[in-house]
Amino acid sequence: MKIAIMGCGTVGTGVYEIIKNTPDVLLKGAHGEKLEVKYILDIRAFDDPEKEALRVTDLTAILSDPEVGIVVESMGGLNPAYGFCMRCLNAGKSVVTSNKLLVAEKAEDLFAAARANNVSFRFGAAVCGGIPVIRTMFYGLAANEITGFAGILNGTSNFILTKMIRDKMSNAAALALAQEYGYAEKDPTDDIEGFDAARKTAILASICSGRHIYPSEIHTEGVTAISAEDVEYVSGANAKIKLLGRAEKLENGKIYACVSPAVIGKEDLLASVEGVFNALKVYGTRVGEVLLYGPGAGKDATASAVTADILDCVRAPGFDTAYCWENAAENAVLPYDAYVTALYVRGYANDKKRAVAAIRERFDGVRFLSRLNAPENELAFITDRRAERELRASLETLDGFAAANIIRVVK
Amino acid sequence: MKIAIMGCGTVGTGVYEIIKNTPDVLLKGAHGEKLEVKYILDIRAFDDPEKEALRVTDLTAILSDPEVGIVVESMGGLNPAYGFCMRCLNAGKSVVTSNKLLVAEKAEDLFAAARANNVSFRFGAAVCGGIPVIRTMFYGLAANEITGFAGILNGTSNFILTKMIRDKMSNAAALALAQEYGYAEKDPTDDIEGFDAARKTAILASICSGRHIYPSEIHTEGVTAISAEDVEYVSGANAKIKLLGRAEKLENGKIYACVSPAVIGKEDLLASVEGVFNALKVYGTRVGEVLLYGPGAGKDATASAVTADILDCVRAPGFDTAYCWENAAENAVLPYDAYVTALYVRGYANDKKRAVAAIRERFDGVRFLSRLNAPENELAFITDRRAERELRASLETLDGFAAANIIRVVK
Repeated sequence: MKIAIMGCGTVGTGVYEIIKNTPDVLLKGAHGEKLEVKYILDIRAFDDPEKEALRVTDLTAILSDPEVGIVVESMGGLNPAYGFCMRCLNAGKSVVTSNKLLVAEKAEDLFAAARANNVSFRFGAAVCGGIPVIRTMFYGLAANEITGFAGILNGTSNFILTKMIRDKMSNAAALALAQEYGYAEKDPTDDIEGFDAARKTAILASICSGRHIYPSEIHTEGVTAISAEDVEYVSGANAKIKLLGRAEKLENGKIYACVSPAVIGKEDLLASVEGVFNALKVYGTRVGEVLLYGPGAGKDATASAVTADILDCVRAPGFDTAYCWENAAENAVLPYDAYVTALYVRGYANDKKRAVAAIRERFDGVRFLSRLNAPENELAFITDRRAERELRASLETLDGFAAANIIRVVK
Repeated sequence: MKIAIMGCGTVGTGVYEIIKNTPDVLLKGAHGEKLEVKYILDIRAFDDPEKEALRVTDLTAILSDPEVGIVVESMGGLNPAYGFCMRCLNAGKSVVTSNKLLVAEKAEDLFAAARANNVSFRFGAAVCGGIPVIRTMFYGLAANEITGFAGILNGTSNFILTKMIRDKMSNAAALALAQEYGYAEKDPTDDIEGFDAARKTAILASICSGRHIYPSEIHTEGVTAISAEDVEYVSGANAKIKLLGRAEKLENGKIYACVSPAVIGKEDLLASVEGVFNALKVYGTRVGEVLLYGPGAGKDATASAVTADILDCVRAPGFDTAYCWENAAENAVLPYDAYVTALYVRGYANDKKRAVAAIRERFDGVRFLSRLNAPENELAFITDRRAERELRASLETLDGFAAANIIRVVK
């Protein structure tokens, strides 16, 4: 089977190296057929003469070669990746991509083109890198209705939180360290504001709901507001703060989907996921809870997932109706603040005694937290469980108390 | 697609119920084809008239019906399951089984028959119940050489150890509680002596090595020798005792495979797996480490895995050369005591001072452990890392020290 790679950055290079250096490992997965990279589409010249010999700059070379059955898209970004993938599918090539933005924004069109041309479209590497979460949801748990998931989907923000929790670093210092290690970009916005996690959550929520959910429909908060004070209070309550991408299918048919920091108990396995690792808990009607953990990024791990998808395309080159979802529907997503939750609240009150009394009155069974050397006027507590908008309305009525940070508490 | 179920106990009933009650959930995975149970082979009559109407007592009814494409084997045991599965494969039916004994002992013949008749033979439910570990190793990590694994593969013994560690129960009391809850059989030998875990380890080691590994080739110890004293010493060393099934592919091409209690650090995710849950860590050359966690047994979870395999058979009814291994080879398995490890040792010495000096002399960098209210003559320590047989030989030379229990320390 001849393969073309569009965009030979980190992931594309990883795929090229796996196919070139370990063809024997792949033979079994490819039912004995040898894989070979025939073209690399890239505008930049390569130093490596072997790679340079495969390089083309015009997509038509790939489209017009009937030997090429599978095209790997590892360019990233929406354009020209989207147009290129559509042209490949329409030329009868199967497409494998690691591009979460592309899938989160354009899967409807890509599924339609793959279906019309009866070719395969797969994107296992788009979420959680080397961890086979997407194939597990589509295939491994196919006898279940997926009722929800919760996951650590962004390694950079998990690294920052791990450093804040374990080494008591400030948020800014932890981000600087992530940048020093190469875990965060110079412009870290996508990671620390939750946008990267929102794209992944959109893809997983689409599998869960069976209909396309767009990132813009998902309430998204990053880790930037988390302070050392929050970490201390939450640690004292035998819990941890993690940035979670979550969704839940509700009884009314709607889906709740959210990316935000979350307070979770220390006994939760997700609380033990440290550093740049990713993990995803999936809930199924038959299986209950399954958790998958591993490297969420990195050249080899991501290329491992892309190559597994290539092997699937070799074994099953036609369109796989088990590996897709329906087009989006209106009002499919619950307004995030209608969802029932508890909230962790940290804030300040000059008349602390009065504030505590008011808080106790508004929030049944409220639990106050403590930390060493807290300023006199600081207060932190965990509310009862109600629709988030009701909790926030109750907070608004607290005279003389100013909330500094609010974090959802996830059971 | 018409399906027959052989043996309608717990798992078979679970599969029957999924297909009967949630056909819509399955349509997607079956590419729109409706699944239907046409026969149930069982010698016992059913109270449920719908099930009874499907019941046959003679396999030939199934074999001779060309409508039946897939047969589920959920009888358990080696006979008559083995003969029945062979007859089904030779009659051109795909077979899906949850029977770990069958796969661990007879996979060579079953693969050969499936290959000869170009039908599918799948056994995802045979290891770790609802957790998709086998398909992950065969498909999800197909771009990797699997270099090893370590897992909690038996829920009953993990429940016993959890109760001993968390609630300070004795081994006997924890077993009694497991029996009361229905987690352990009246005769718990298979679970507590490690035989169940050894069958699962044999299957996973076969995937890892690419050749059949038999349970008889795997050094197997259960949890019966673990005492409250061991639990205390190990907890004091910030570690936990877990029953692990493990294998490692070695540089000389041999495979190390072992089922035994293991001392693992508390920060290891496997240490956080509590109660009857299962978890498996898999090491791949590209992906590094991936962990899967979930329910390792139970009607619905196991039936979920069987049904996922049924759907695979519907989508890909032919023999899958990516989902098998080669026949066994001689001397493929390393003698377990040639493997390099450290050992936890608990024992007794009347002249403790002299014993400590001798232990320090024999074991470089030995680490002595402590527990509250230990008897005067008790000693526990962790040795250096060497081939296990060398460590045991050194222990033999310790005059005046009698080892009471020895547990491998796993990094």
